[in-house]
Amino acid sequence: MIRLDSRAPDFAQAFKRLLGLKREIAEDVDETVRGIIAGVVSGGDAALVDYTRRFDRLGQDFSAASLRITAEEVEAAVAACPAEARAALELAAERIEAYHRRQIPEDHLSTDDLGVTAGWRWTALESVGLYVPGGTASYPSSVLMNAVPARVAGVPRIVMVVPTPEGQLNPLVLAAAHLSGVTEIYRVGGAQAVAALAYGTETIAPVAKIVGPGNAWVAAAKRRVFGQVGIDMIAGPSEVLILADGHANPDWIAADLLAQAEHDPAAQSVLVTDSDELADATEAAVERALATLPRADIARASWRDYGAIVLVRNFEEAVPLVDAIAPEHLEIETEDADELALKIRNAGAIFLGSHTPEAIGDYVGGPNHVLPTARSARFSSGLGVLDFMKRTSILRCDPAALRALGPAAIALGQSEGLDGHARSVAIRLNL
Amino acid sequence: MIRLDSRAPDFAQAFKRLLGLKREIAEDVDETVRGIIAGVVSGGDAALVDYTRRFDRLGQDFSAASLRITAEEVEAAVAACPAEARAALELAAERIEAYHRRQIPEDHLSTDDLGVTAGWRWTALESVGLYVPGGTASYPSSVLMNAVPARVAGVPRIVMVVPTPEGQLNPLVLAAAHLSGVTEIYRVGGAQAVAALAYGTETIAPVAKIVGPGNAWVAAAKRRVFGQVGIDMIAGPSEVLILADGHANPDWIAADLLAQAEHDPAAQSVLVTDSDELADATEAAVERALATLPRADIARASWRDYGAIVLVRNFEEAVPLVDAIAPEHLEIETEDADELALKIRNAGAIFLGSHTPEAIGDYVGGPNHVLPTARSARFSSGLGVLDFMKRTSILRCDPAALRALGPAAIALGQSEGLDGHARSVAIRLNL
Repeated sequence: MIRLDSRAPDFAQAFKRLLGLKREIAEDVDETVRGIIAGVVSGGDAALVDYTRRFDRLGQDFSAASLRITAEEVEAAVAACPAEARAALELAAERIEAYHRRQIPEDHLSTDDLGVTAGWRWTALESVGLYVPGGTASYPSSVLMNAVPARVAGVPRIVMVVPTPEGQLNPLVLAAAHLSGVTEIYRVGGAQAVAALAYGTETIAPVAKIVGPGNAWVAAAKRRVFGQVGIDMIAGPSEVLILADGHANPDWIAADLLAQAEHDPAAQSVLVTDSDELADATEAAVERALATLPRADIARASWRDYGAIVLVRNFEEAVPLVDAIAPEHLEIETEDADELALKIRNAGAIFLGSHTPEAIGDYVGGPNHVLPTARSARFSSGLGVLDFMKRTSILRCDPAALRALGPAAIALGQSEGLDGHARSVAIRLNL
Repeated sequence: MIRLDSRAPDFAQAFKRLLGLKREIAEDVDETVRGIIAGVVSGGDAALVDYTRRFDRLGQDFSAASLRITAEEVEAAVAACPAEARAALELAAERIEAYHRRQIPEDHLSTDDLGVTAGWRWTALESVGLYVPGGTASYPSSVLMNAVPARVAGVPRIVMVVPTPEGQLNPLVLAAAHLSGVTEIYRVGGAQAVAALAYGTETIAPVAKIVGPGNAWVAAAKRRVFGQVGIDMIAGPSEVLILADGHANPDWIAADLLAQAEHDPAAQSVLVTDSDELADATEAAVERALATLPRADIARASWRDYGAIVLVRNFEEAVPLVDAIAPEHLEIETEDADELALKIRNAGAIFLGSHTPEAIGDYVGGPNHVLPTARSARFSSGLGVLDFMKRTSILRCDPAALRALGPAAIALGQSEGLDGHARSVAIRLNL
């Protein structure tokens, strides 16, 4: 764990090092992925089945007919889920839907003094593919966070793909898909699933956009098919930054730091405080909590390699540090949390006050938990309804409006050497 | 030019071929670009100056001190612009600003029955880099279309880069920068300029996002720096699709087809009509108009290789064809243009009626002319204010709200094997 003090003479350099810590393991899988995509494009279902048998260790009885998960299988899975988890998923889905409904954008069209009618219309994407990882990283909450906004946006076709290594599949993932309006589910994963969603096969019709988290192969495949289809952001390891003053409870802060650290050895948890006492007490509390945490190995590695406690003179001084880190998750547990939040420009999500642990936002708060990582909150937003819609601009001139605007358009067309542009206006004005 | 008829028995295959026409020349410049970016990252200003001398054929007197274009140079350029073009640019800037002001999004925060306060806040990016091509593709209108929305969004630092091959620079480009609130201008281009914007040098501070059109080197560089900074879409060759019935004027339609074709031999102009007569008359009108068009060589090549006239039985039948093409620009010159427009899902921009040539939208209509190409209107929108802002979600629970939501969050955390998540909630509830 890294401990910094803004009063130290080398603080600026030390903070720069903290900012520059490389937490992504860039596995070089791009060539393999290129081959897999080309294979699915040329081989269709047969190639998809072949890759799936091989990578997910499935037998020869896995065929094109096995690709789709049927409605009956989904129903059986839903029935097999523990009632408590199912009820929790339902509450989460309701709250996520209510929050995202407020994001539905408005169309606009108005006519100005010159007689020019201008505006825009939002429409839902025609189809979306949702990638869901298999095995231990198969999180039903992520299904809700990706599929519910797509449904709220009005996407008519929501396709989920999920690998079933050795045939295993978390029934809660199917329950979440069922709850959130997924319309088709296929038991495929990896670059081959991304290729199938982007280019289509005999069984899987192509989609317009692919979203959802995945491993290095999935990320490389999404980068490669971008352009053919839209993609969401490429997520890096998770991260939290906590601003807390001397009134904060060190055991609660430690629990939040470790909730983030348990995701991944490359996750990052940072505490920024103006209190020496809180810094010391939290450091000790982290060690105590690690002793009984089931995923202590992962959390300990993350805290050791990327964890940090930064002491500042005051929170004014912390604002530019937060904006430079641009954390995915920002918890503010200070007395003036609301005011302090207003000063922050760069953060994916802000959690205010001591009774809003970040984990509430992961599951049932309502806001999306798919958030920009690795400093990308400087230029991007969490997932939302707008990611499943697009805007078409609309323009209409009546003859008088064209007469009013035409000469300026002709002048600009000619000045840019685009006479054909100028002529398309002039011909309508008899110029 | 390709002529299709929806009544022909092979129409479906022929239309699929039209859809699949590859119009992008994928120059393989990625390795060169990788080297240039690494050079600027390690060499800073010195490398940037060196590449610029070489690629823009500038002399040894070009140094780090020459990188920035001064306010005096900008003023001199503005004064040197023809008055008519300057006035046209001012009108364009005003109208673009008025249109984009309506796109400023609203923040939202509300508290529900459980005592959970949730919402979001939009903030402007802290800085943006605008790439402007040099030479003949240096369009002042593009400067406005990229910079005005950034200023409207509230971006405090708008940096423009523009190469000056052999020292040449279009004064109207500087005038447009001046009008639209660009705050810094550097005379650099190519992958080296993209690298400088993304990573910074001694003279150029890094930005959070890079936008603007460019050649294959610029596009490859933008793809490479994505993640370090945000980027806008990678634009392909321009395209127009015109829906017109028998009432349309074939000379006007031909002028619009050629206004698009004159951009680039890889541009695409398509007419879809229910009138055999209009199809024939437009084909003849295109040939007549080409005879006197200054950029006839480019326009003729585009029309010959990628132009198309598609005959349909009726416009109902045209709707799925338009949605499959997802044109960057869609002109509707039919009697029921407004109703027909509502049936279209995929288009970057729609131009309604016979007095709205697409060129009006390129310059002075108000909507943005940076639009999705190559079928990407299926999943993305034209440039707008939202591209220069990002949304931070906000969540606050009071103790009662945490008691109400906590058990569900604990259940989901445990079901996902993330006990640390569950504990961060439980510890606050004494569970």
